[in-house]
Amino acid sequence: MTRKTIVFLLFLLPFLGVSQTEDEKQLRQIYTASLTEGQSYEWLDYLSNQIGGRLSGSFNAELAVKYTKEQLDSLGLDKVWLQPVMVPKWTRGIKEFAYIETSPGMTNNVNICALGGSVATPLGGLKAEVIEVQGLEELEKLGEDKIKGKIVFYNRPMQPELIQTFEAYGGCVDQRYSGAAEAAKFGAVGVVVRSMNLRLDDLPHTGSMSYGELPVAKRIPAAAISTNDAELLSTMLALDKNIKFYFKQTCKVFPDVQSYNVIGEIKGSEYPNEIITVGGHLDSWDLGDGSHDDGAGCVQSMEVLRLLKKTGYKPKRTIRVVLFMNEENGLRGAKKYAEVAKEKGEKHVFALESDAGGFTPRGFSFDCDEANFEQILSWKPLFKPYLIHYFEQGGSGADVGPLKGNGTVLAGLRPDSQRYFDHHHAANDTFDAVNKRELELGAATMTSLIYLMDKYGTVQQSKIKG
Amino acid sequence: MTRKTIVFLLFLLPFLGVSQTEDEKQLRQIYTASLTEGQSYEWLDYLSNQIGGRLSGSFNAELAVKYTKEQLDSLGLDKVWLQPVMVPKWTRGIKEFAYIETSPGMTNNVNICALGGSVATPLGGLKAEVIEVQGLEELEKLGEDKIKGKIVFYNRPMQPELIQTFEAYGGCVDQRYSGAAEAAKFGAVGVVVRSMNLRLDDLPHTGSMSYGELPVAKRIPAAAISTNDAELLSTMLALDKNIKFYFKQTCKVFPDVQSYNVIGEIKGSEYPNEIITVGGHLDSWDLGDGSHDDGAGCVQSMEVLRLLKKTGYKPKRTIRVVLFMNEENGLRGAKKYAEVAKEKGEKHVFALESDAGGFTPRGFSFDCDEANFEQILSWKPLFKPYLIHYFEQGGSGADVGPLKGNGTVLAGLRPDSQRYFDHHHAANDTFDAVNKRELELGAATMTSLIYLMDKYGTVQQSKIKG
Repeated sequence: MTRKTIVFLLFLLPFLGVSQTEDEKQLRQIYTASLTEGQSYEWLDYLSNQIGGRLSGSFNAELAVKYTKEQLDSLGLDKVWLQPVMVPKWTRGIKEFAYIETSPGMTNNVNICALGGSVATPLGGLKAEVIEVQGLEELEKLGEDKIKGKIVFYNRPMQPELIQTFEAYGGCVDQRYSGAAEAAKFGAVGVVVRSMNLRLDDLPHTGSMSYGELPVAKRIPAAAISTNDAELLSTMLALDKNIKFYFKQTCKVFPDVQSYNVIGEIKGSEYPNEIITVGGHLDSWDLGDGSHDDGAGCVQSMEVLRLLKKTGYKPKRTIRVVLFMNEENGLRGAKKYAEVAKEKGEKHVFALESDAGGFTPRGFSFDCDEANFEQILSWKPLFKPYLIHYFEQGGSGADVGPLKGNGTVLAGLRPDSQRYFDHHHAANDTFDAVNKRELELGAATMTSLIYLMDKYGTVQQSKIKG
Repeated sequence: MTRKTIVFLLFLLPFLGVSQTEDEKQLRQIYTASLTEGQSYEWLDYLSNQIGGRLSGSFNAELAVKYTKEQLDSLGLDKVWLQPVMVPKWTRGIKEFAYIETSPGMTNNVNICALGGSVATPLGGLKAEVIEVQGLEELEKLGEDKIKGKIVFYNRPMQPELIQTFEAYGGCVDQRYSGAAEAAKFGAVGVVVRSMNLRLDDLPHTGSMSYGELPVAKRIPAAAISTNDAELLSTMLALDKNIKFYFKQTCKVFPDVQSYNVIGEIKGSEYPNEIITVGGHLDSWDLGDGSHDDGAGCVQSMEVLRLLKKTGYKPKRTIRVVLFMNEENGLRGAKKYAEVAKEKGEKHVFALESDAGGFTPRGFSFDCDEANFEQILSWKPLFKPYLIHYFEQGGSGADVGPLKGNGTVLAGLRPDSQRYFDHHHAANDTFDAVNKRELELGAATMTSLIYLMDKYGTVQQSKIKG
């Protein structure tokens, strides 16, 4: 090291020091404000307990649009608006009913629910023999001979040995999403899928499915069955492969309806045309009240803007909260948001999503280039006092995904994932399953990253600005 | 670097590589076994749901001794035994009752419970005016004049802005532990303490208290009040300082009774005289079933030995599980264990405790010298796939504490602490509040550290062996 360099570094040191201290102070303020005078839990209480499940196209979804817009209006942001988007409307109908029939008249009721997007069974229900498979691959091996006229029972469980439960989910969810379309090709009359749940319990877990290119006439009804009942069905099949399965569901698809993304922003003081987006999805499944998926992400995202204001921080860039509509069964809100952004030539520098539950935050997953990732890693020590340690390259989130490109840095909050699939898309995704502190820590963690991203900009940004 | 050194390192490299890979494999096996064929959750189910709360000296505590000994017997360990220890016996009596009286006949019932070790109120209960304080310091300022004849109401809440909730607990628990002894010195007739709970709810949280050197005749009854009712009482006092508080409790101290630490061990193959201890405490408070505090720590500690056997690992050192009796109100089991170890000249090289709830493990806190801590830090990368990131110097645990000295490395498992005080010492410390995966991840994390400690020894150990 030359003497000149040393002198230069010595000169720089106090400035670096001061800057670090400012950041440390700002993060401490953010976390304290979130934990001592946070708003996120109260918002979630209303969304969950006064509104409830918010399936796209439902009355509740519209109530949620109205409520969150009002709340954003009350924060004194620079602008709050609704962005129109057409969304699919699928309704569950009356409560599904199912049983295993071991011999005529001898039945065992089991817990099922229709998968989102499924067609109904015939009016009197559907009864057929069952063929159990461990996944889509097994269908081809079995062939039409063994499948035709039967109900296909997908029973590959989530792998408990995977530490990150989203990996276990990723390894199974093809059964739910494509199971009906694939089974129909071999002449199956219906599909029952083991719930995407790592726990053994009695709750069926719904979720989206698709018939792909399958003509309407060939579509077969698809349901999820609770893990306990999946075990029971499998055991009974092992004893007697001639048992029958009956289920009845009255779900229906209606024409698309008008809905909205709910958006609010604080205008940037230095670079108002550079947009930083933070969001979750406002729609949810209908069985629970959507507290973890994704009421939590919505109220945390709203809280980011409130906490920035509360702590007196004036963003350089425009900070925008987006509550996306229709993540669960269409992603229409996310696509619309990205489409409009493109039309308007908006420059999105960073987009952060929270859609993995309101559990203790562990860190973030990023979708960005190396230069940006290195800058982010340099902030890691700032998060240490808050036990935020997970900073990895990887996915971001479904709703911010369509913003990918043009150097936009994407990220997803990564809360502890162990309990998520106990509640995901099931009747117990309810407010009482959310811990106030965990939710607030998540909001503070998101706000801290948004603050740093706003203050220092993304790497390309800094280069352009010199 | 000399050429010789380089050659030496190159020669060493494959060996280092192999060793690392072995450790990685062993940890993967441990986690997989715990998550796919674990025993800890089933044991906890029995302890919690078939036995229940296990207060020292109670019939349930003896049932727990019997059950866990039987279970250890079934594991094929080299030795299982009971270590006798005399423990205190305090009983709660009939359910406590309390109200706030705003005027004669106008009462509001509130939720209280006697603190462990408290004396009873007079048979007809105790009614007096209340003086609210924010802690022990405020007593002296107020003086006997303002305190005499009154019930002292300690209402300093746990600080929500502290990220680690045990710090918030540490900052308040003096009110519970010493509140009665201190207030009695100023002539108070009773003590009501805000529950050690970060949440607002209706559950009173018990816990140990001490009268110190206070003569029996001067002891005054002490109760915990739920956080919601503490808020209510404080609000009412602000409106009218003449309101009265009534409470009745019939708790009682009996002579000490015989109980036991439950111990099992696998004899070390190379250094059988070097002992590694892992444990939790078998007693619990009586309001819930003690699932988190500390049923979880007990079954995780038992699971450590089972997982080592299950994965085919033959320990070099003697690995011992100790289920300590009477951590909550006496620590007699821990003291006895250390006393006997000293008498026998046993050499304890490492002792690990799990007593912070069965939540997602984040890492460990260590009480050891720098050299050992550095060795431990070198293992940190092995834990990364399991999201175990917290390795800090600090406390270990109450039950392993008495083993301190002679270079024994002490450690405590550090699970996520956010939800712990929602349940701690309250009626909702129950089995349903424990997540199976979180419990199992904790057991695997403990087993992994025990494996590494056994394989590599502590630093002094290695030096002695050359």
